[in-house]
Amino acid sequence: MEKDTEGEPKKDAEPNKSKGKAGEIDGDTLALQRLKALGHRMVEEIELGESPAFETVVRSKGNVIFDEEGGFLRLGQKRERRRFLNLSQSKIFMQTLAVAAKTKKFIEEDLHTSIRGLYYQLKFTMGEDLDENLFDEQSESNALIEDLEAALGVKREDLHLTTDRKGVMAGPIVIKDHFAGEDVYIDGRKQGRSGWAIPSDVDNDMEIVELDANYVLVVEKDAMWQRLNEDRFWQKEKAILITPKGQSSRGVRRLIRKLADRGLPIIVFTDSDAWGWYIYWTIKTGSMNLAYLGRDFSVPEAKFVGVTMSDIEEYDFLKKLTIKAKEVDVKRAKDMLNYPWIKKHPEWVHELKLVLKTKKKLEQDALQGPRLTFVGDYLREKIHEKKFLP
Amino acid sequence: MEKDTEGEPKKDAEPNKSKGKAGEIDGDTLALQRLKALGHRMVEEIELGESPAFETVVRSKGNVIFDEEGGFLRLGQKRERRRFLNLSQSKIFMQTLAVAAKTKKFIEEDLHTSIRGLYYQLKFTMGEDLDENLFDEQSESNALIEDLEAALGVKREDLHLTTDRKGVMAGPIVIKDHFAGEDVYIDGRKQGRSGWAIPSDVDNDMEIVELDANYVLVVEKDAMWQRLNEDRFWQKEKAILITPKGQSSRGVRRLIRKLADRGLPIIVFTDSDAWGWYIYWTIKTGSMNLAYLGRDFSVPEAKFVGVTMSDIEEYDFLKKLTIKAKEVDVKRAKDMLNYPWIKKHPEWVHELKLVLKTKKKLEQDALQGPRLTFVGDYLREKIHEKKFLP
Repeated sequence: MEKDTEGEPKKDAEPNKSKGKAGEIDGDTLALQRLKALGHRMVEEIELGESPAFETVVRSKGNVIFDEEGGFLRLGQKRERRRFLNLSQSKIFMQTLAVAAKTKKFIEEDLHTSIRGLYYQLKFTMGEDLDENLFDEQSESNALIEDLEAALGVKREDLHLTTDRKGVMAGPIVIKDHFAGEDVYIDGRKQGRSGWAIPSDVDNDMEIVELDANYVLVVEKDAMWQRLNEDRFWQKEKAILITPKGQSSRGVRRLIRKLADRGLPIIVFTDSDAWGWYIYWTIKTGSMNLAYLGRDFSVPEAKFVGVTMSDIEEYDFLKKLTIKAKEVDVKRAKDMLNYPWIKKHPEWVHELKLVLKTKKKLEQDALQGPRLTFVGDYLREKIHEKKFLP
Repeated sequence: MEKDTEGEPKKDAEPNKSKGKAGEIDGDTLALQRLKALGHRMVEEIELGESPAFETVVRSKGNVIFDEEGGFLRLGQKRERRRFLNLSQSKIFMQTLAVAAKTKKFIEEDLHTSIRGLYYQLKFTMGEDLDENLFDEQSESNALIEDLEAALGVKREDLHLTTDRKGVMAGPIVIKDHFAGEDVYIDGRKQGRSGWAIPSDVDNDMEIVELDANYVLVVEKDAMWQRLNEDRFWQKEKAILITPKGQSSRGVRRLIRKLADRGLPIIVFTDSDAWGWYIYWTIKTGSMNLAYLGRDFSVPEAKFVGVTMSDIEEYDFLKKLTIKAKEVDVKRAKDMLNYPWIKKHPEWVHELKLVLKTKKKLEQDALQGPRLTFVGDYLREKIHEKKFLP
């Protein structure tokens, strides 16, 4: 990973920032324009007797940059070109174009599918030769689609590809979902025990039409979300209560980003352990793997409310509710002390060193120890007194 | 596993069948009564100078029975007793009682928590000595809670323990959710792209108040559910559209059971592979691990609409959309040919032998190959012509 404080990514590699703002076009409309432009450019190259080429931003770790000013991970300037008339690049070039052509069709038909659905469309067209592993949805990198996202500066959701969805929300918010030809209004105060299932795409044909909240609380675990939902925490606090159910899906990250853009403080509540910290930092700065998504999927404004190991200084009884840290927790704490964007915060250094010293962890569930409703009191107190880690 | 066609499980080990029926009490009220009765019995035993004992049904495989008449897996007659005044049983006896006492308190307070929350309540009370692994929520068997469920003939949801929830629903149904002091009405036709997130407990304080559907379609994958939801399949077909998102959660299984009890046919749509078949058979007959839940969590009436390997006889182009079966798929097909409740169906024997012969699998996503909306046509045709496997 490189460090780089200067040099913006090139204009057409920049994530699309127009989503959800009044008067600007939807992401899928923009994607369609850019897909068409890509096609036209190639036709021109052919007419000029040149080999058509596809250019995208390099997504490997060597081109991942922590943007000091913005406070998030993004890609640097390195670009790569794939040419049709190059023996080693010809196949992947063709496949990239096939993906581009199919997604263009999906947008024009106004239909959506998963990466797996796209794979079968390609297989139907291209026959048995199609390399299955190239499109394996289990794999982390659906390389061709990511190439296209990075090259066009759009999200895969704009290409009408649905992604895994996870996470629920409740609170004083109304969302208009224009879906399959009908407008549906989702009232975050009327979702009962379930909450609103956060969809894969929270940008296209979706709008926040009412928002009357003081802040957003992101709670790592669904069980803890259910606890707080039962206490009507979101009502008492006028807060948007979100759980990503572990690591955040793309839809959850986009939703949090949009709520931050509306001026709401973003407060994150996780376990004090490797997985919990990872969830927080992915929300805040993004992750290496998804650095190509840049600012659209990160929330540098986010603050960490807990659980912290230093909470046991304030709440004495928590001491007996700590449990033994796993090796991965200790290792992760050590790693984090080396990340420049973490070690610059003395509060985090203090916290992580406490983990290394005590070899303990503290789960958010532990805050139900004395009584089930204690967790709400804990959060209220820390939030009102602004006891956050940066 | 034993085979047994006679002999009902003992009355108080029988799952509570009163849920959701008008005029009968809620599961948590019943659980409270039974927890109190358990306590009173122990006090009596102590007063009589006897060692208090806790009796439950044996949940090991040796006591799992396929109920031929009912068509589901359940526990047999074997019971076990734990005595307080027995050195090897004393600790676990105490812990079982501690769980019983805590869950009684949760019901009385009308608050819910997860197994992890329960663990921390016990830890707070009992201190650092509490054996952490005994309550590890990652483990398959939360033995003490399952003991209590089996002993009292109630579900853990009735004990106010929330469980992992997963799965969404849409369709012509209205559900009244009495939650945290408020009634919320969930209209399955107004859930937009998201669908209704199926909660952990669909019995207590929850009621189906409107239902105008021809059948229930259970779709293995969320991506496929989203595709069908976008096509408004549930509206065109007047169907309840559910995805468990893979293996069904307890809440999903209960919801399907309740819809079957309302007389709706239950039709299941999965991949033709090991995981897909497992999902179907777990919905239909239950599973060995959860046999103690019995009829309340199984739907013997369920039918399998596909995808089947024999579909390629009807839909020729599907041939080129098959992919190589994995070892686990082939092994699973072999295993299934030995299950008495599967091998008695010639249709399944034909199907599974086809898998062994071709060593291929067919995913439900493949039905989007020719065009994204094909999957709906396929389902409509097979459902209307009743082309099901039993």
